[in-house]
Amino acid sequence: MSVTVVGSVALDTVDTPSGENIEGLGGAATFFSLAASNYTDVNLVGVIGTDFPQEHIDLLKSKDINLEGLETADGKTFRWKGHYHEDLNVRDTLETHLNVFETWEPKLPQIAKEAPYLFLGNIHPAIQMSVLEQADQKFVALDTMNLWIDIANDELKAILGKIDCLIINDEEVIQLTGDHNIVRASRKIQAMGPRIVASKKGEHGCLLFHDDDIFSAPAFPMEEVVDPTGAGDSFAGGFMGYIAQQEDTSFDTLKRAVIHGSTVASYLCSKFGPDGLINIGPDEIAQRYQEFSDLSKF
Amino acid sequence: MSVTVVGSVALDTVDTPSGENIEGLGGAATFFSLAASNYTDVNLVGVIGTDFPQEHIDLLKSKDINLEGLETADGKTFRWKGHYHEDLNVRDTLETHLNVFETWEPKLPQIAKEAPYLFLGNIHPAIQMSVLEQADQKFVALDTMNLWIDIANDELKAILGKIDCLIINDEEVIQLTGDHNIVRASRKIQAMGPRIVASKKGEHGCLLFHDDDIFSAPAFPMEEVVDPTGAGDSFAGGFMGYIAQQEDTSFDTLKRAVIHGSTVASYLCSKFGPDGLINIGPDEIAQRYQEFSDLSKF
Repeated sequence: MSVTVVGSVALDTVDTPSGENIEGLGGAATFFSLAASNYTDVNLVGVIGTDFPQEHIDLLKSKDINLEGLETADGKTFRWKGHYHEDLNVRDTLETHLNVFETWEPKLPQIAKEAPYLFLGNIHPAIQMSVLEQADQKFVALDTMNLWIDIANDELKAILGKIDCLIINDEEVIQLTGDHNIVRASRKIQAMGPRIVASKKGEHGCLLFHDDDIFSAPAFPMEEVVDPTGAGDSFAGGFMGYIAQQEDTSFDTLKRAVIHGSTVASYLCSKFGPDGLINIGPDEIAQRYQEFSDLSKF
Repeated sequence: MSVTVVGSVALDTVDTPSGENIEGLGGAATFFSLAASNYTDVNLVGVIGTDFPQEHIDLLKSKDINLEGLETADGKTFRWKGHYHEDLNVRDTLETHLNVFETWEPKLPQIAKEAPYLFLGNIHPAIQMSVLEQADQKFVALDTMNLWIDIANDELKAILGKIDCLIINDEEVIQLTGDHNIVRASRKIQAMGPRIVASKKGEHGCLLFHDDDIFSAPAFPMEEVVDPTGAGDSFAGGFMGYIAQQEDTSFDTLKRAVIHGSTVASYLCSKFGPDGLINIGPDEIAQRYQEFSDLSKF
């Protein structure tokens, strides 16, 4: 079964302790699509400017990602510039130029509307809602960020009441609920609507809350993280891609989906931009999945 | 086989978001002993003042903890006072009165010298070394803290060269090595001497480094942490107690030892002071161990 992702396509400039990457391919929908394309058919819904390099289009097409929903608007592509500290959990946003992304109103082509699985990348929750109203997916997951928790809290809570799964950072879990206990706070988010909450803890792994059950997934222990940009969206791509491939949302499948999300995210972090995702295939995924299994078995 | 612990016995006053506990039984050697006594015979080596309540002695004796090495010195017992924030990872030390602990020179009775397993609780590394020189244990684990990394770095590095296992917080791993990558940093600590490093991450679980292998253990997801004081020492007690019971230090046994450490630490955190450890037995340990297994299985 196929999955649709709606979100940003961007050109990212980052510097990390490992080096720098200037105007690399980025954006939530990009990372999600590249990760999910390892598992299933993907429809990417996003917007780019007329300056978007053709080589990036070619890359996405080479992964069989459907680009009918990728609109080209007059103007420049969304650009983001960030600096990572020695502690890679800390990053400073140096520049954000929304450009064509600022006034974008996503329109889903028929194939994207019909995909049974939908991921709403991090955009204003009112826009996420407008997408949800265009489609009739059977399983919807959503990402958000501190900004929307701050300035669009009502709209965010409205859409939380309509989705199946929230994929969110632990800091945002605390911010959204005002509760510092991640377990209690995730339970409070479930009470807001989504019966599944994936609370991501970066280098500490992920807690998956599914109805009354909890699954704790480790992070892959990496001696060098080159560039964490897009790790969360890659995680979501592996997670949703695996669920769509399995056509199942049972707790057992969701647990394995978390490991697949962590698998592709670990590859992503090992290189700059999306490079870590580009040259992996079934063998690399199977190997890392087994490493995750060995890592946590006792 | 039996285990010997050398460390503080204290009276702790804490306030946490759940309430307060005034002059409760505390100290590294206390928490370690109570946790380890679930698994094996324990020799406690420490010092108390003449004001130490008899009821605490009675409690330790009721758990068959050998107190030949618990010296009573003229003066007051070590007292510590702390305040925990809403985010329980953050605590302020309000008062520290070392009292009789300040000038204590540990002397191991014969039974403590002969125990095959030794845990050196958090004391000045020069004192830890003096203990090590009195004994001929086959497996030695050690705890330390930010203060000794700061002011007694050479002495700490000297004893690291002589032990088998370091049990340490992730923040201390970073401080000791100057490396923010916990995996790389833990490997650097192995290169300093201990072939086993348990890097504890509080609510995020623990990474165990054993030669070239890594094990990632989850933390138990708790909706209410009442009082984390002593969690690290309880972890060490469960870890070393299980190893001593199994008389084995293979990687497989060490992995299960981490889960046993996490098991007793989770009970400890559920009540003030040592109360969470007092009323548990084999049934509670087996149940929580199974919960850990269910939590991380996929």
